[in-house]
Amino acid sequence: MNISIDAMGGERAPQAHVEAAEQAIQAFPELHITLVGNEEEINKYLKNDKQINILHTTEKIEDTDQPTTAVRRKKDSSMVLSVREVKEGRADACISAGNTGALMTAGLLYVGRIKGIDRPALAPMLPTLDGKGFLLLDVGANMDAKPEHLLQYAIIGNTYMEMVKKVRKPRVALLNVGTENGKGSELTKAAFPLLQSSDIHFIGNVEARDLLSGVADVVVCDGFSGNLVLKSIEGTAGTLFSLLKKELTSSFVNKLAASVLKSGFKGIKDQMSYSQYGGAGLFGLKAPVIKAHGSSDATAIFHAIRQTRDMVEQQVVTIIKNEVAKTEDKE
Amino acid sequence: MNISIDAMGGERAPQAHVEAAEQAIQAFPELHITLVGNEEEINKYLKNDKQINILHTTEKIEDTDQPTTAVRRKKDSSMVLSVREVKEGRADACISAGNTGALMTAGLLYVGRIKGIDRPALAPMLPTLDGKGFLLLDVGANMDAKPEHLLQYAIIGNTYMEMVKKVRKPRVALLNVGTENGKGSELTKAAFPLLQSSDIHFIGNVEARDLLSGVADVVVCDGFSGNLVLKSIEGTAGTLFSLLKKELTSSFVNKLAASVLKSGFKGIKDQMSYSQYGGAGLFGLKAPVIKAHGSSDATAIFHAIRQTRDMVEQQVVTIIKNEVAKTEDKE
Repeated sequence: MNISIDAMGGERAPQAHVEAAEQAIQAFPELHITLVGNEEEINKYLKNDKQINILHTTEKIEDTDQPTTAVRRKKDSSMVLSVREVKEGRADACISAGNTGALMTAGLLYVGRIKGIDRPALAPMLPTLDGKGFLLLDVGANMDAKPEHLLQYAIIGNTYMEMVKKVRKPRVALLNVGTENGKGSELTKAAFPLLQSSDIHFIGNVEARDLLSGVADVVVCDGFSGNLVLKSIEGTAGTLFSLLKKELTSSFVNKLAASVLKSGFKGIKDQMSYSQYGGAGLFGLKAPVIKAHGSSDATAIFHAIRQTRDMVEQQVVTIIKNEVAKTEDKE
Repeated sequence: MNISIDAMGGERAPQAHVEAAEQAIQAFPELHITLVGNEEEINKYLKNDKQINILHTTEKIEDTDQPTTAVRRKKDSSMVLSVREVKEGRADACISAGNTGALMTAGLLYVGRIKGIDRPALAPMLPTLDGKGFLLLDVGANMDAKPEHLLQYAIIGNTYMEMVKKVRKPRVALLNVGTENGKGSELTKAAFPLLQSSDIHFIGNVEARDLLSGVADVVVCDGFSGNLVLKSIEGTAGTLFSLLKKELTSSFVNKLAASVLKSGFKGIKDQMSYSQYGGAGLFGLKAPVIKAHGSSDATAIFHAIRQTRDMVEQQVVTIIKNEVAKTEDKE
């Protein structure tokens, strides 16, 4: 199995990526990794190149680049070349912590959609109180969705949680403004019966306020809504942690008391962090394309590699393809 | 000025409402308050009935009641009677901490829409780091919105912040998935130019992650999105506070350290709390109808009364009516 990694994408590239690649080779002896990026930069951190090769390029897509233009013009960028490794069969899957829009564009353009999937979905795992997390999709691959897209997201998410996260009979829910049937927007009202009559274990509507309590394993919504929810959670957690930090360092006595609680606070922060859950999958493409968080450290990239490897090994793409085909046959 | 209060709506009714009414009469000597509800229950807490009268009824709309059915059938409920006090000219505005959907239904049915406003919006003030707060609308009066509704929300919000919150030239923003122009759903893309060509101080798109930092004074969105964001913020804050509480009481040493930090933690919790900001306005009706939070204590109800009084005094409804008429003339 070979995974290509955009070694230049993200705030801690390439160091985090190189370290994570070495760890991954240790953990998964069958794995080969292609690090795509500036060879000189990469070699600064690469200690052991066993089963790791470098595909050299100096071009890079910036976070500030306009996605479609960047993918079209920067054909030799580390991101585009990573994705093309998959298209041309030299890699089974790829990972980037760079520009999200560009990765979606490159994924669609070079890897392509699974037959029967109208729109791929961007799907991160979000933390829950019980530590198991849930998959939220879509968080912004497509802004507007039709009811049948939400059904496709449900099938994709269900397969992922079952095969990769080993959740038996994942609880699939529809993000909505109330838990009662018949609630919501025109979209959610129309999607509800579709989900209800599908083969997945649909548990109905869930509200945004209950997401972190772990009420569902898979939560589907249109990309605009998912993006708002994701960023509201991030923003609120960030605001509270910064208020907390300010308070804890506001006096000598507070600092002292805070030092006692330090490991506890770190525990909470870790519990609310994404890094252990891997990256966000761009699901619905013909091969796994994974978007790691822009601020990913080596641990987060390692988990993204693990997750990507599991997806390849469990043949998630093939299963999604079959499940979607089944749904289409029913229609 | 007379304000009617549904004395039976909310978790702490009628005690919180009675106490708040007495405080309000002290603070605003020109005010008269009608407490609508069970006279016997109310009299248990009422110490001084100066400028406070009771409109007795035993019927009540429950939080679990289906809104439209409840408003139609429970014509003598404390909520419906409170709203009818406004319709029949005996009160200038009303407040309820009960069933949100029922209050919206009753408000629409008995108070009615301002001419030119297609849809009223439910608009709470949310906390920001600088303590000033911002108005978010709509958070669920209408699930689906058209671009021109978002413009109306902007006009309503702008007027409220200017007249009641005394913000000079409020910064009005569109809730979106990115700050760049041209981002977002079909709705936000179509609303953007409408907002841009209006007379209000439109500052462009804002992301959900930046809301609590105080990037805008008024944020407009469709009711489905607003509801998701509101509940995501509530849910995340609630989750973090419960994790924190668990951690702080997990050992004797932690409890000791936590006791030092107690006032600081309370400060953070207060800063993130809604109670000081009053209730959520159901804006776009011919008179102020205010929804207080279901868990409102006397302080929260007091602030809702203060806010309602300010709206009446500043003739917010008349100004909104004129502003909307101006926009229509332009078309």
